[in-house]
Amino acid sequence: MCKTLSGTPRDDGFRMPAEFEDHDGCWMIWPERADNWRWGAKPAQQAFADVAAAIAASEPVNMAVSAEQFQNARQLLDSRVRVVEMSNNDAWMRDCGPTFVVDGDGGMRGVDWKFNAWGGLEGGLYFPWDKDDQVARKVIEIEGCDRYRAPIVLEGGSIHVDGEGTLLVTAQCLLNKNRNPELSQGEIEDVLKAYLNVQTVIWLPKGVYNDETDGHVDNLCCFVRPGEVLLSWTDDESDPQYAISSEAQRVLTQAVDARGRKLKIHKIHQPGPIFISDEESRGVDAVDGTLSRLPGDRLAGSYVNFYIARDRIVFPLLDARYDDQARETLGALFPEREVVGVDAREILLGGGNIHCITQQVPAHRG
Amino acid sequence: MCKTLSGTPRDDGFRMPAEFEDHDGCWMIWPERADNWRWGAKPAQQAFADVAAAIAASEPVNMAVSAEQFQNARQLLDSRVRVVEMSNNDAWMRDCGPTFVVDGDGGMRGVDWKFNAWGGLEGGLYFPWDKDDQVARKVIEIEGCDRYRAPIVLEGGSIHVDGEGTLLVTAQCLLNKNRNPELSQGEIEDVLKAYLNVQTVIWLPKGVYNDETDGHVDNLCCFVRPGEVLLSWTDDESDPQYAISSEAQRVLTQAVDARGRKLKIHKIHQPGPIFISDEESRGVDAVDGTLSRLPGDRLAGSYVNFYIARDRIVFPLLDARYDDQARETLGALFPEREVVGVDAREILLGGGNIHCITQQVPAHRG
Repeated sequence: MCKTLSGTPRDDGFRMPAEFEDHDGCWMIWPERADNWRWGAKPAQQAFADVAAAIAASEPVNMAVSAEQFQNARQLLDSRVRVVEMSNNDAWMRDCGPTFVVDGDGGMRGVDWKFNAWGGLEGGLYFPWDKDDQVARKVIEIEGCDRYRAPIVLEGGSIHVDGEGTLLVTAQCLLNKNRNPELSQGEIEDVLKAYLNVQTVIWLPKGVYNDETDGHVDNLCCFVRPGEVLLSWTDDESDPQYAISSEAQRVLTQAVDARGRKLKIHKIHQPGPIFISDEESRGVDAVDGTLSRLPGDRLAGSYVNFYIARDRIVFPLLDARYDDQARETLGALFPEREVVGVDAREILLGGGNIHCITQQVPAHRG
Repeated sequence: MCKTLSGTPRDDGFRMPAEFEDHDGCWMIWPERADNWRWGAKPAQQAFADVAAAIAASEPVNMAVSAEQFQNARQLLDSRVRVVEMSNNDAWMRDCGPTFVVDGDGGMRGVDWKFNAWGGLEGGLYFPWDKDDQVARKVIEIEGCDRYRAPIVLEGGSIHVDGEGTLLVTAQCLLNKNRNPELSQGEIEDVLKAYLNVQTVIWLPKGVYNDETDGHVDNLCCFVRPGEVLLSWTDDESDPQYAISSEAQRVLTQAVDARGRKLKIHKIHQPGPIFISDEESRGVDAVDGTLSRLPGDRLAGSYVNFYIARDRIVFPLLDARYDDQARETLGALFPEREVVGVDAREILLGGGNIHCITQQVPAHRG
C-alpha cells in the first residue's frame, strides 16, 4: 500500500492526468516563514485560507501544517478543510508535493521528485530544504498509495501536461545548471517521458520575467484542454515580458502535440507590472540566505497561475485594471466551470500564486 | 467535515462500539523517548513494528511518527502500514488518541478527551504533554470526521465498553485526585454516560499492582463479548495482585450490566511477577521529571492487555511459563479469531502493553 517502487510509471501503465481531468481533492501547505511572508505571515495565511475555502466548495482540501501552526490554522480554515500536521520549509505544495499518476483501472501512485528549493546552493531560495523534500512522500503515504522516487530534481510548477501525451516546460528552468547539471536535455526528456508517460515535450525558452523559480511554466502558460494553451501576455512592447511571451508564442505556433495537433493559442493579459511597496518590504524579516524582498522589486504576476478545481477555476485577483478581463477570458475558456477570484497579492509577494500553492489529487478508486 | 461540535455523542445518537465489533483500522504512535524506552528506543521500535505488522495482516494500521523518526519508521515498518507525521510526547495511542463513536447510519465522530500524562503535575509521567494532548484531534482530522472535545481528563485505557450500554472503569484511576479533582463520582459518571452513550458504569476498585497509570482497567479486565469479561488473575495469595483481582471479582460477581445481565467472569493467569533487570534499567536515560526505571521494579504485566483486530487477537508474550496458557484461554474466548502472540517485554518495560499502544477505528462509511 505504501511501497517505494522500482521501475517507472510508464513501465507500469500509469500517466499524469491533466489538471482539468476529474479530481478527488487538493493539497496545500500553510505559510509561516516570517523571512518570506510579511507581518509574520498573517496576511498570507488569510489569503491561503481564502484559496482553500474557494477550492473546498468544489473538492476536498487537505492543508499540511507544522505542529506550531496547527491550532491557528485549524481555527482560520473552513471546516471542510482537513488539517494534517506536516513539517515543512515553506508553503509551495505544487513544487515540493507529489505528482500523482493514474492507470486506466482506478489506480493511483505518487511521483516524488528530488527537491532543492529551486536551485540548491546555486540560487536556491532557502536553506535547508530537507523538510520540503519529504513532503511528497508524506502526502503519498496519507493518500495510501505506492511511490516512485524520481531520479531528478524537479518542481511540479515546472511541468504542465495535456493528459494526452504532451508536456510543456521551459528550458530556463529545466536546463538550469542548478537543477540537474549532469544531465543533457535529451536525458532530462527521457526521465520526463518515463515518469509522466508523455511522448512529446514542448520546450518554451523562458518563464515570466523576474520569476524567482527560474521560469516555471505554470506562471506563463498552461493547457486549458488538449490542443489549446493559455499564454500570459502583454501588449506593451517596452515591457521585458513582451519578448518572453512573443518567443513562447513563436514556439507554440510551430509546435505539434503528441496527437499530431497544432496548438490553438489563447492569450491573457498580465496584471501590472506589480512592484513591492516600501511597506510590504519592511514587513519581511531580513535573513541571510533567503531571497530579499526589496522595495521596488518587480513581482512575477500572472493570471495563468490559477487552479482548476472539479467545477471551478480559482484565479488570482492582482490588478483592478485587468482582473475583470482575466475573469472573462477564463470564463470563456472554461464554460462548464464557475470562475472565482481570490485576492492574491499576498501570495504573489511570497513568490508565486494560486497554482504554486496547490496540488491536485486525480480521481481514482481505492 | 472537521468541525468541533457542541453537544454530546448521546445527544446526537452516537455511541462507543466495543472493540470486538468490526473495525476499519487501527492507530499507533512510534516510540522514541530515550528516557522511557531503553537503548534509544530501538528494541521498543522493533516490538511496535512487530505489533503493527501483526495487526496490519488483519486491518489497516496507521503509525503516527515524529518528523525526526519518519524515515526510520518508514523503513522498519511493514509496507502495509501507513506512516503519518505527528509530533508526540510518547507512544500511547490508546491513552492520548481519540475514542471513536458511531451512529446507526455509518457515521463516525471522535471524542477528544483532555490528556494530562496520567496525572499532570501530581504524579504524571512526564512534562510537558502538550503534543500528546493534540494527538486525538489530529487523528480525528485525518479520519475526516467531526469532533467532540470532552470536558474531563481521561485516557482511553481507563475505559472498556461492551457496546451495549455498559462501561468498565477503576475507581483508583477515574477518581484519582490527579485527574478531575473538582468532580464527584456522580458527575464523572454523567460525563461518561453522555460521551460514550452508556447507561451502566461498573466501578472496579483498583487496577493491576504497581501500574503507573493509576490502575487503568485495560490492564486488568475487559469485555470479550456482551455479558462476559476477562480478568487478570493470580493463584498466589501472597502476591499483592491476589487481593486486587479478588476484589474485582467480587464486584463483577455482584454487577448487573445495562441489559440486566449478570456477568460471566473468565480468568487469565498473569505472567511473572516480572521485574526490571539491572541491564534493562541501565539502558534508560536518567532524566528528572520522568518515571525512573530502577532495577528490581515490578512491572505491571498482564495478558488482558491485548488488541482485538478484525479477525485476530494480538496478545503480548511476556513469560514462557504462562504464554501458552494465555494463548489457549484467548483462543477459547475468541473462536472466530486467530490468536497471535508478539514478544512484548520491551513494551512492558516502557509502562504498558499492546492494548495501550493501539486505538481502533470502528467500521463506518464516509
